[in-house]
Amino acid sequence: MKRRSFFKQASLAVAGATMLSPFDLLASEKRRSILANNAGSAKNIIFMVSDGMSIGTLTMADLLLQRKEGRRSKWLSLYDEGKATRALMDTASANALVTDSAAASSAWGGGKRVNNGALNVNPDGSFNKPILQKFKSAGKAVGCVTSVPITHATPAGFCVNIASRGDQSEIAVEYLNLDFDVLLGGGTEFFSADKRKDKADVFGQFSQKGYHVVQNRNDLLQSSTTKPLLGVFHEDGLPYVLDIQFDNRLKAEIPSLSEMTKQAINRLKQNKNGFVLQVEGGSVDWAAHANDASALLHEQIAFDEALSEVISFAEEDGETLVIITTDHGNANPGLFSSNDKFDKIQHFKQTNDKVLNSINRNFSSKQVIDYIESAQGIAIKDEEAKEILKHYNQLDSEGLYNPNNLPFKTFAEIQSNYTGISFGSTNHSSDFVELAMFGPGSEDLKHFVKNTDLHNFMLQTAGLIEKS
Amino acid sequence: MKRRSFFKQASLAVAGATMLSPFDLLASEKRRSILANNAGSAKNIIFMVSDGMSIGTLTMADLLLQRKEGRRSKWLSLYDEGKATRALMDTASANALVTDSAAASSAWGGGKRVNNGALNVNPDGSFNKPILQKFKSAGKAVGCVTSVPITHATPAGFCVNIASRGDQSEIAVEYLNLDFDVLLGGGTEFFSADKRKDKADVFGQFSQKGYHVVQNRNDLLQSSTTKPLLGVFHEDGLPYVLDIQFDNRLKAEIPSLSEMTKQAINRLKQNKNGFVLQVEGGSVDWAAHANDASALLHEQIAFDEALSEVISFAEEDGETLVIITTDHGNANPGLFSSNDKFDKIQHFKQTNDKVLNSINRNFSSKQVIDYIESAQGIAIKDEEAKEILKHYNQLDSEGLYNPNNLPFKTFAEIQSNYTGISFGSTNHSSDFVELAMFGPGSEDLKHFVKNTDLHNFMLQTAGLIEKS
Repeated sequence: MKRRSFFKQASLAVAGATMLSPFDLLASEKRRSILANNAGSAKNIIFMVSDGMSIGTLTMADLLLQRKEGRRSKWLSLYDEGKATRALMDTASANALVTDSAAASSAWGGGKRVNNGALNVNPDGSFNKPILQKFKSAGKAVGCVTSVPITHATPAGFCVNIASRGDQSEIAVEYLNLDFDVLLGGGTEFFSADKRKDKADVFGQFSQKGYHVVQNRNDLLQSSTTKPLLGVFHEDGLPYVLDIQFDNRLKAEIPSLSEMTKQAINRLKQNKNGFVLQVEGGSVDWAAHANDASALLHEQIAFDEALSEVISFAEEDGETLVIITTDHGNANPGLFSSNDKFDKIQHFKQTNDKVLNSINRNFSSKQVIDYIESAQGIAIKDEEAKEILKHYNQLDSEGLYNPNNLPFKTFAEIQSNYTGISFGSTNHSSDFVELAMFGPGSEDLKHFVKNTDLHNFMLQTAGLIEKS
Repeated sequence: MKRRSFFKQASLAVAGATMLSPFDLLASEKRRSILANNAGSAKNIIFMVSDGMSIGTLTMADLLLQRKEGRRSKWLSLYDEGKATRALMDTASANALVTDSAAASSAWGGGKRVNNGALNVNPDGSFNKPILQKFKSAGKAVGCVTSVPITHATPAGFCVNIASRGDQSEIAVEYLNLDFDVLLGGGTEFFSADKRKDKADVFGQFSQKGYHVVQNRNDLLQSSTTKPLLGVFHEDGLPYVLDIQFDNRLKAEIPSLSEMTKQAINRLKQNKNGFVLQVEGGSVDWAAHANDASALLHEQIAFDEALSEVISFAEEDGETLVIITTDHGNANPGLFSSNDKFDKIQHFKQTNDKVLNSINRNFSSKQVIDYIESAQGIAIKDEEAKEILKHYNQLDSEGLYNPNNLPFKTFAEIQSNYTGISFGSTNHSSDFVELAMFGPGSEDLKHFVKNTDLHNFMLQTAGLIEKS
């Protein structure tokens, strides 16, 4: 898309919007196409979420690309080239300055702040209609893509009403009733009869409903279906891209976020009334919780590659609003030391996740040192190796995202001596976060927004409700 | 200033700028007024630096004000009201992704990246002319205001060429030769014959040169001088505002950053050709180095009050560009826990600096607990008090900003259990940082800039060089 045609379209669209008569989408659940020409300025919306991305994550991923590959991240290139608008976003939930991903996605998805843990369910038990249900009712194709389970909080916040995010098996069943067009990510355990507690064959139920169901990369890449598409590629969240890169089996099985995004767009754009797609770099958040620096930066880069795919489509298409943001900060990582230390990350072949899952209690400290040196190119000290090993001989709890009680925090603290990267916490933060927009409608973005503001922004930009 | 008149002026000014013939300021050192009507869009520039302000600092200061006083920070109000433009800024120095304040201020002040520690001196030993010397030569009044020594890196980077920032006694003498109009801050030790190693009476030398010299709040507030003004109000950096607030003696002696800023503007605006002023919240950086959460947030609020003063002037004046930013992140603090914990900060009566300087090795753990409870309203555990006391019986080093080796980091880690605020480091970070502009010229700000870009931006906006 050329700048000139983009602005021309945008102003035509604004003019058109004022001629629409008001209506309340919520009053009518019938599927219908309300998309008269120029009803809103955007026919399609792609909502890109790098989950749990503190500003240090965005910065360091860009610096890593600059130093390793001599190029900038797509996200920051958009700023450099003056192609995007920007805002700061307040991410709080109804009951906390520090939101969780369920409340954060619900703020966008349902337009109201709910308590942490809830998906579009208010403190009084009432529901807020999820945005992809609104768009689906209005005749658009809709979908979600993520690197974590497709039933996880961020996609779910655009799709369903559930009091507690934890019940992902229930969310998988809810999806079945929505007739959405594309669902791609991880989470086999919530769809497979083998893995589900209730032994329900949810994959089979999706097939019976007319979905094309895929479970590996090749099947996804070769699918040119006109059916709705369900793709689930790993038991839980997808493995980290850095670990996939050095594992031929995983490489063959697991599509990248970028590949899933491309396939999703190809499927969704078949709809003449346009589409709305959420793309989540969910593993960015998981890596931040684990203070896993190399996983974090490579997941952010994988998100950025999906963003490149999206911008290519949107530039060509000219009718697509792209929203690029995060739901909250996480761990507030930073580079606090020398360039030499930072450059060490370039030579990592394994994430901390892979390293710590490969070590076991029978390792000697010498074996720990040797393993880490071969996997990450840094030579830790004997007392540091012993500190890591100590955790394999005791239970310790680092919370929700560390089911095997591996010493992620301890390892990250040791590693920071070598990489210069350290973290303030293993939790989300209250930081105001980066938000960018590209394409028609992006010119309406204000400098400071609340997460909830994006709900009506999307509905207005696509012409489903009038601009206030 | 009304929005309408601001844009009218701005567009007139741009039109005017194209009629100027090109000239090279560097080629002529003579003082001269090059400021024909509408030569640039801004007659005055006020450059506001919250030194070492990570995004978490900006966020938490705003949240603290919202929860305690029901109002937003001025900085974020400017965004809410659509009055400012915004960018992300890359803060690297010539030799490091993580800059120090000398190189960062030199990037703005001299237009070139120098190595950390240098003030407008290139790696090859050559000099970059400091921006306030350029503006002074062009007939503008110039000055600096800070909450740390006026000879410290950030003001010095706008003023002098010195290979190493450390020699603040030398910087005080350099200032004497510059004939600048206003210098206000801390650093008595670098001006007083009693305190200087060479016993030179630099205060006396400034008086002899025709300066009005003040050393306490009252004398500053009552000064309505037309002479150049030197005000130095404390031996080193000024005490933290939270500690001043609860100390009547300090309250009488030490002006606030806002008061210094107001007096500076009153003095500088007497010049018919306009002025350029740097205002630094230098203590924000010092508090971040010390992971001193209550000091940090109250210093950021003090900076924000100075910003309010500046915006009031600039709105009234209509010819002033206000640049609002930081030189680099520091410590990447964040709120990572509940609202209840965060609200505890509202009841602090002492900074960690004051607490740790009040404790001594003869305290019992019970006395430490009691002292902290009365000073900060949090009841730490006995083992935590003992952990703090341990440091008083041994030397430990936390670097440049902790000459008495007090356990700032240990205390901050303990405190985070009660306040929910924690820090990733005690050093600067490489994070891209927040930059805002208000007033004529602000519309030219791009979405992403390098620190060095601001040098020519200022010269262009004030009409000293042509827009490229």
